[in-house]
Amino acid sequence: MANIQEVADKAGVSVATVSRVLNKKSSVSPKTRVKVEAAIKELNYEPSMLGRNLRNSESRILLVLIPSISNPFYTEIINGIEDTALNSNYHILLCDTDSNPLRENIYLNMIKNKLADGVISMDPAVNKKRLNDLAKKYPIIQCSEYDDAGHIPHVTINNELAAYRAVKHLIMLGHKSIALINCDEKFLYARQRRQGYERALNEFDIPVRKEWIYNTDELLFENGIRAMRKLLQLETTPTAVFAVSDTLAIGALKEINENGLKVPEHIAVVGFDKISFSNMTNPTLTTVSQPMYQMGCVAVQMLINKIKGEDVESIILDHELIIRESTMG
Amino acid sequence: MANIQEVADKAGVSVATVSRVLNKKSSVSPKTRVKVEAAIKELNYEPSMLGRNLRNSESRILLVLIPSISNPFYTEIINGIEDTALNSNYHILLCDTDSNPLRENIYLNMIKNKLADGVISMDPAVNKKRLNDLAKKYPIIQCSEYDDAGHIPHVTINNELAAYRAVKHLIMLGHKSIALINCDEKFLYARQRRQGYERALNEFDIPVRKEWIYNTDELLFENGIRAMRKLLQLETTPTAVFAVSDTLAIGALKEINENGLKVPEHIAVVGFDKISFSNMTNPTLTTVSQPMYQMGCVAVQMLINKIKGEDVESIILDHELIIRESTMG
Repeated sequence: MANIQEVADKAGVSVATVSRVLNKKSSVSPKTRVKVEAAIKELNYEPSMLGRNLRNSESRILLVLIPSISNPFYTEIINGIEDTALNSNYHILLCDTDSNPLRENIYLNMIKNKLADGVISMDPAVNKKRLNDLAKKYPIIQCSEYDDAGHIPHVTINNELAAYRAVKHLIMLGHKSIALINCDEKFLYARQRRQGYERALNEFDIPVRKEWIYNTDELLFENGIRAMRKLLQLETTPTAVFAVSDTLAIGALKEINENGLKVPEHIAVVGFDKISFSNMTNPTLTTVSQPMYQMGCVAVQMLINKIKGEDVESIILDHELIIRESTMG
Repeated sequence: MANIQEVADKAGVSVATVSRVLNKKSSVSPKTRVKVEAAIKELNYEPSMLGRNLRNSESRILLVLIPSISNPFYTEIINGIEDTALNSNYHILLCDTDSNPLRENIYLNMIKNKLADGVISMDPAVNKKRLNDLAKKYPIIQCSEYDDAGHIPHVTINNELAAYRAVKHLIMLGHKSIALINCDEKFLYARQRRQGYERALNEFDIPVRKEWIYNTDELLFENGIRAMRKLLQLETTPTAVFAVSDTLAIGALKEINENGLKVPEHIAVVGFDKISFSNMTNPTLTTVSQPMYQMGCVAVQMLINKIKGEDVESIILDHELIIRESTMG
């Protein structure tokens, strides 16, 4: 495939002149235009959209950093992001960082190299200092997870309140022995959800017991299974579990069943996210619904406004507790 | 942010000269180089990798077309694609086509516009004629689903044989009334899996009954639920079900449970894909394991070879029947 330089050489003009012909600028003489068009035809040259965008410094590409496409939580957010972006004539570059700093760096360099116009970061493992530095110069929005010490606009839900309500639901059902299966507390959402859990217990004078709080490295089913296995080995086992993701909760359900115990009769379980699987389990899972699709739409709108140079404020969306069989039988 | 034209104007040189300075070509006088470098510094211009790649016609980006990121089947393939691509210094542009021709067109135009060096298509709904036409000019590989009438290299498994083995497993357990929950037969894999289903029945002189073959539009849980509901309303209900995806099988499991029937005592169920959730159901799901991660790795290697201009042959990978509780109790 010929490139623009070869077309210029063939026509005996500069690259800039070829570019002016391609962009239909009037500052080219008819004679030169004919020469360039003949060279384009002869070399079978197809002008690159990339080249044309370069002239106005736009790639029309938005980077979306996700820690793991394996977690169904992200897929609905991505659907919202894609629909909104495509409607505004932007393409989405989905970057699965796998919480790997090397991959993260490769992808974040793309915005410095102008391969992208802006970034939506959903990666809780992102290098916060790096992201905050980049955000001084480039349009960046955080979605779902954010840095409470930073200044990057974000769209999220009130994680503390959502966890508080989930645990209060269990308390209202008569539970006093409520375990928490949490993720690593290096993540802001994990710290906020623990705070909500503790606030609900404190409000009803139920002591917080350290042995009933289990922190996992990741949000895989296997992590939920291992957490529940540990909780079932304790001298006093909980009668209810609040897990900070549906994937963890589904692993916990599985381990409870494996031990011949029944949900919710022996142990009630609440998850978080309302992924589509959460309605396929037996029993179905009580969970906190986040407006994931809407969150994706809002994130893109914020980012496009930011790219236009507008001031962008952070947004907190509503959540909802979805009560199903795993707590109510 | 300044662009290359503004740098050229500031330095009083052509865009091509700025480009030569950026690419450290020797054909620039020291005096001109100093002028250009001063303009770059003064305007705080950051050269775009996009611009540099344009000169050698490489974007180092591979397009990956997937019909739906919501289907966990694709996520493991994508992990293999990403690991292999990043190791070879390529970035992945994940394009969720949502089986929407409009989105598909937008993304496929990117390769014509040189925003990508090649395409891996996993989308069974892709416009086959368009893809075959593009493949004459651009590097394209099909992964999992392919066009048996076309000439695009593909990596896949033997779908007919895999379905044959799954159904034969049910026959060996004594089942003679075996339903098929299939996807739309516009997809090659759906036609091949029906052929394998019929071959197994024919081999054991079991008649193929039309009312026990149900075709769904999509591979969502809900489609599996609806299919099973129909099958349970028949006068003679099947004692076993082979579903062409785990998502459909999980929906079927759910509907069987809802009707107070037990798996596998009343109805045995086999799925396809071995998604991670297939081990979380109660009972766990017998399924056909595809080497999804490996399939992704192989697809990228084939594409990179194709980009280099090498001849690339199609590859058939091995599959495996994973026998679990939904058939063996």
